[in-house]
Amino acid sequence: MSTPSSGPTSPKLPLGFQWAAANAGIKASGKPDIALAVCEDGANAAAMFTSNQLVAAPVTVGRGHLHATGGRVFAVLVNSGNANCATGEPGLDACRRSCTAVAEQFGGVFDEVIPSSTGIIGVPLPVEKVIAALPSAKAALGNTPEHLTAFANAILTTDTKRKVARATIEGETGEPVRLFGCAKGAGMIGPQLVPHATMLVYLFTDLDASTSQLREVLTPAVESSFNSISIDGDTSTNDTVLLLASGKSGVRATEKVMSAFVEALHLVCNSLAHQIVDDGEGVGHVITLEITGAGSDEDAKQIARNIARSPLCKTAWSSADPNWGRLLCAAGYAGVPFDPAQVTVSIAGLPVFAYGVRSPHFDEAATHAAMSSREYEIAIDLGQGEGRSRFLTCDLTHEYVTINADYST
Amino acid sequence: MSTPSSGPTSPKLPLGFQWAAANAGIKASGKPDIALAVCEDGANAAAMFTSNQLVAAPVTVGRGHLHATGGRVFAVLVNSGNANCATGEPGLDACRRSCTAVAEQFGGVFDEVIPSSTGIIGVPLPVEKVIAALPSAKAALGNTPEHLTAFANAILTTDTKRKVARATIEGETGEPVRLFGCAKGAGMIGPQLVPHATMLVYLFTDLDASTSQLREVLTPAVESSFNSISIDGDTSTNDTVLLLASGKSGVRATEKVMSAFVEALHLVCNSLAHQIVDDGEGVGHVITLEITGAGSDEDAKQIARNIARSPLCKTAWSSADPNWGRLLCAAGYAGVPFDPAQVTVSIAGLPVFAYGVRSPHFDEAATHAAMSSREYEIAIDLGQGEGRSRFLTCDLTHEYVTINADYST
Repeated sequence: MSTPSSGPTSPKLPLGFQWAAANAGIKASGKPDIALAVCEDGANAAAMFTSNQLVAAPVTVGRGHLHATGGRVFAVLVNSGNANCATGEPGLDACRRSCTAVAEQFGGVFDEVIPSSTGIIGVPLPVEKVIAALPSAKAALGNTPEHLTAFANAILTTDTKRKVARATIEGETGEPVRLFGCAKGAGMIGPQLVPHATMLVYLFTDLDASTSQLREVLTPAVESSFNSISIDGDTSTNDTVLLLASGKSGVRATEKVMSAFVEALHLVCNSLAHQIVDDGEGVGHVITLEITGAGSDEDAKQIARNIARSPLCKTAWSSADPNWGRLLCAAGYAGVPFDPAQVTVSIAGLPVFAYGVRSPHFDEAATHAAMSSREYEIAIDLGQGEGRSRFLTCDLTHEYVTINADYST
Repeated sequence: MSTPSSGPTSPKLPLGFQWAAANAGIKASGKPDIALAVCEDGANAAAMFTSNQLVAAPVTVGRGHLHATGGRVFAVLVNSGNANCATGEPGLDACRRSCTAVAEQFGGVFDEVIPSSTGIIGVPLPVEKVIAALPSAKAALGNTPEHLTAFANAILTTDTKRKVARATIEGETGEPVRLFGCAKGAGMIGPQLVPHATMLVYLFTDLDASTSQLREVLTPAVESSFNSISIDGDTSTNDTVLLLASGKSGVRATEKVMSAFVEALHLVCNSLAHQIVDDGEGVGHVITLEITGAGSDEDAKQIARNIARSPLCKTAWSSADPNWGRLLCAAGYAGVPFDPAQVTVSIAGLPVFAYGVRSPHFDEAATHAAMSSREYEIAIDLGQGEGRSRFLTCDLTHEYVTINADYST
């Protein structure tokens, strides 16, 4: 690879990666809309993509590339402002051309390039603009925090904040292993990744781990983080979580190291998932649904998902309305059997419902006051079994309607 | 029964019923909150109730009464302003006491009284107020259009309009058989009735039909009407559809008569279902989703339900935004397999998507203009099979958020 190296790497960033952003002119705002990550000597990769039946071209192409290479990645090309979805064969061709152009520009192999797109569905991707921006991306490539920040910014769409998280673990003899993650997503967020919003998440580490090791740890980390959040419940066509390991720390993924890495991975994924909900479109309140006592973890998550999708619950949260009946109603139509006489519900630690009836300790004014906090927990114990789910969601506000109804001819 | 008869029955109203409304003081507004229907000589009945796991006391009691009597009903007692749900054993006791009080007041049997409640969940029903209002309801009983109108008004909560529909068919020798329906419901509307909002629907006929005949025709009529609508997707704990047949027309339900009655029943149910969506909380646009070409009718309905529940689709409709990508996205996460390359989509008859890509005939300005109508159709053909669903839904507006976030201590 002929990419210029740009000086000493920050000790906090994973080794073996370079990042850049560029302006291809896809976004009407003129903000950066191309993000590029290059792993000069290649990285082992594990990925999870959307379970939507309508799959964007980059998801189809990226999945195929990972399959063809056995999970080997040399570069990641992200464009924001256009989802390249519902664009048919021309969309697939455009996507493949962009990968080939990256391979040519940076000296790699086209199927070791993983493409991602996010933005409006159904508009042909202006691939010539993408390709024309690659030389300036190449010139901007580097491995400093500023370069990574530029990458993390360029993947954003309706987000108001950059979403990043990092962790460091140690190898058997104390050598540092670095993990850095960045994410985008504020709307169309109800991920259901199957080993899958548009939520895009890129996780970079310099751990020396095999593709199969990465796959094994990514699924549970995604299940308890990105698959346990909902903003509007709309599962996107482009959702992607990509974990890349360059091996450049020189630290082998022994059992002990992997155990620490798994913990770090969960921390980083949970932090990014929380940042996504916290920056959700029009969000005024971030709610943690702690569902316990369900027949199974899947039952618990199904109940959490239905509450998180209920417009009546979400609008009540927006005004700190302690209308707990809406919570029970939404739990009740989740398709999961339970006996209300066994159920307890608390909001921000305050009891509201106990064993079939309003709690004798229900204090409406105190509950309303507690719900005025930006963030609080709603705990529902179903009294049926050991199944549980910790699920992050948010309220439904006028601002959400304004953002998503914003259309003018 | 000692109830006074109140003069000649209107030829358009089903014979054998009397109606009344009263003020029990449950609603803070002071509007009528008790609706009573009495069928002096009894009626055969078929009912469908909510599938929610959290079931209101009147649903439990009413289901039990119908089971105990084999579907025989003498009176219907409805209170609005309180759902008597999540109220435990005391709620069940209160409900049963109100049935007993109706039986005593009007000279019937307590388990031939069907109770219904609609309003806030989790607040004890002030049953003493209900019972205290029965004498004034008795004094107000009658069989004129005004009496029926009073009944239809008293069941309303956040509705802005009374919802009524009627039909008349003829017996084998030309005698009239009357069918009259009324309904309430504007929010928490995503009915999933299983032989089951709070949507309350009362259908009165003077056809002479057996309970089993009524049951047989009610299920399909509900499936294609009330079970094919969604306002906010929240399936209520109190949803009830009750069909009562007094037999007082003297017309036996022969095969030929039943065939005409089924048609009339579908017309009345479809009209009431349309009125419910049209009066949905904050509704600006009424959308008919015509899903065809699915593997099965259930697949088609599942896709319709997911589109109808998608906040991104609903907010786009509120601003007449022809963002058809959101439709396909929501269809794609319904859990129903399909191939986008076989799919066509049109909005108000205008093609927007065809066989995997944006239709070459897509005219954004014309589509936007067509979507500015109060009511239009979105047609999606999946190209997979013969399954279809015609589903009514609406947009999500600022007004919806205002109505449901309206809370002050």
